[in-house]
Amino acid sequence: MNIKQKIETAVKESGGYLCVGLDLNIKRLPEPVKGDTPDELIGFNRSIIESTVDFTAAYKLNLAFYEALGEIGFYVLKGSIDCIPKDRLIIADGKRGDIGSSAAKYAEAIFDKLGADMATVNPYMGYDAVEPFISRKDKGAFILTLTSNPGASDFQLQGEPQMLFESIASKVVEWNVSDNIGLIVGATQQDYIARVRSIAPELPLLIPGIGAQGGDLERAVSGTMVEWDGISLINSSRGIIYASSGKDFAEAAASAAKKLRDSINQILKKYEQK
Amino acid sequence: MNIKQKIETAVKESGGYLCVGLDLNIKRLPEPVKGDTPDELIGFNRSIIESTVDFTAAYKLNLAFYEALGEIGFYVLKGSIDCIPKDRLIIADGKRGDIGSSAAKYAEAIFDKLGADMATVNPYMGYDAVEPFISRKDKGAFILTLTSNPGASDFQLQGEPQMLFESIASKVVEWNVSDNIGLIVGATQQDYIARVRSIAPELPLLIPGIGAQGGDLERAVSGTMVEWDGISLINSSRGIIYASSGKDFAEAAASAAKKLRDSINQILKKYEQK
Repeated sequence: MNIKQKIETAVKESGGYLCVGLDLNIKRLPEPVKGDTPDELIGFNRSIIESTVDFTAAYKLNLAFYEALGEIGFYVLKGSIDCIPKDRLIIADGKRGDIGSSAAKYAEAIFDKLGADMATVNPYMGYDAVEPFISRKDKGAFILTLTSNPGASDFQLQGEPQMLFESIASKVVEWNVSDNIGLIVGATQQDYIARVRSIAPELPLLIPGIGAQGGDLERAVSGTMVEWDGISLINSSRGIIYASSGKDFAEAAASAAKKLRDSINQILKKYEQK
Repeated sequence: MNIKQKIETAVKESGGYLCVGLDLNIKRLPEPVKGDTPDELIGFNRSIIESTVDFTAAYKLNLAFYEALGEIGFYVLKGSIDCIPKDRLIIADGKRGDIGSSAAKYAEAIFDKLGADMATVNPYMGYDAVEPFISRKDKGAFILTLTSNPGASDFQLQGEPQMLFESIASKVVEWNVSDNIGLIVGATQQDYIARVRSIAPELPLLIPGIGAQGGDLERAVSGTMVEWDGISLINSSRGIIYASSGKDFAEAAASAAKKLRDSINQILKKYEQK
């Protein structure tokens, strides 16, 4: 199955466009799962995955949180990925980017050792830093384009006549010969998010920044999916996996996931009726 | 000891500006150390470190090569770092870059779990992606500025009146309030390497791309160290650690390291006499 089919299947099976970010933070674990053995940490992720999978198309694992665990990091990361059903999309969010020979090693780690479907990739070093992540049709990459953080304005919004993020989106469209590349655009970038969509009408977008970071869900969904062919995966991390710190954390995560999936679908329905 | 003092000490103790890249590639190990148990892999790095340390100011470990080892990666990486004497600079080369909360986790992994002195950081996401790596005076970051690979021209050389790499170098100079940031400039970028130095006269530069990638040593050294206050660390990886595939691999690495250290010093001497 190629990446495009994989994403379409995951959206269909889960009934929507939700991506859940498994940002495993030991300091924020719910009381009932306090304990930091590798298997307890995997157990927390397994509970979240099992309770949210009916509403979730994709799981994104931010590698920073696993690397900060030190020697148990790989074991917990791999064990968590293994809990995700095969008909959901698995995104290893490491924002890697290096010269070709090193990028090939990162791709080997992410695709072969961890078993992820897609990696997030930083485009600063250009095509040969991206190529190893897009050279197989059953694997792919989401490329950082316009990020959700304050520092995004330092460089991404610079440049004339095209701003840097526009140059990158344009290049990525050229690189997408195997239908396995998407773009990352922060939901906080309300003024520009629709511009990314207009440069890349058909590419899947990965949109973080809803919730804790303050992005507007309605504008993200309406600006990138209404009247466009490309789909958008809307990511939420903390708002779902730490929805409750009590015994009901799994049920609360399920409820938050269902609510966000349904909100996205309602926005789509509302605009389609206009 | 702050980072600036640490670098000065390492240069003084080793008599030069050499950085050795420990790009551990199982497929390229010398015959006598064939074997891929974690301790055998650490043993190879230990041999290289012990034989080159008299001529080497800094060791750079490209994290991609360790991550590609999968579950043993962290153990081998940490075990190798532990072999490096404390008066040498340890650079964890992961080219990380993420929003502040995630960048803080990467900094925790690299500085606290691994014990590296400096990280390599991708500036695409702006200041808050860099800040966690430069917030302690005894730790620091080398920022990707103008890289040695072909794809560098895709985005880094774009922009007017300033090209992107110039904007980044200028910003980094502003960010360097704690004297703990350096810039990465590929030796292959012969036309621009001196321009980076003129924007950042006092910052340490990390210069990869000598040897296998085709960079010109004389231009890199003369363009960034003659008549400038800032020092440059010249990196070589494959040319040193795989200098021989036979029983004499450690002696060959020592010899290649000494030769490169001395060549750099001879270039400096030659230009200073002019």
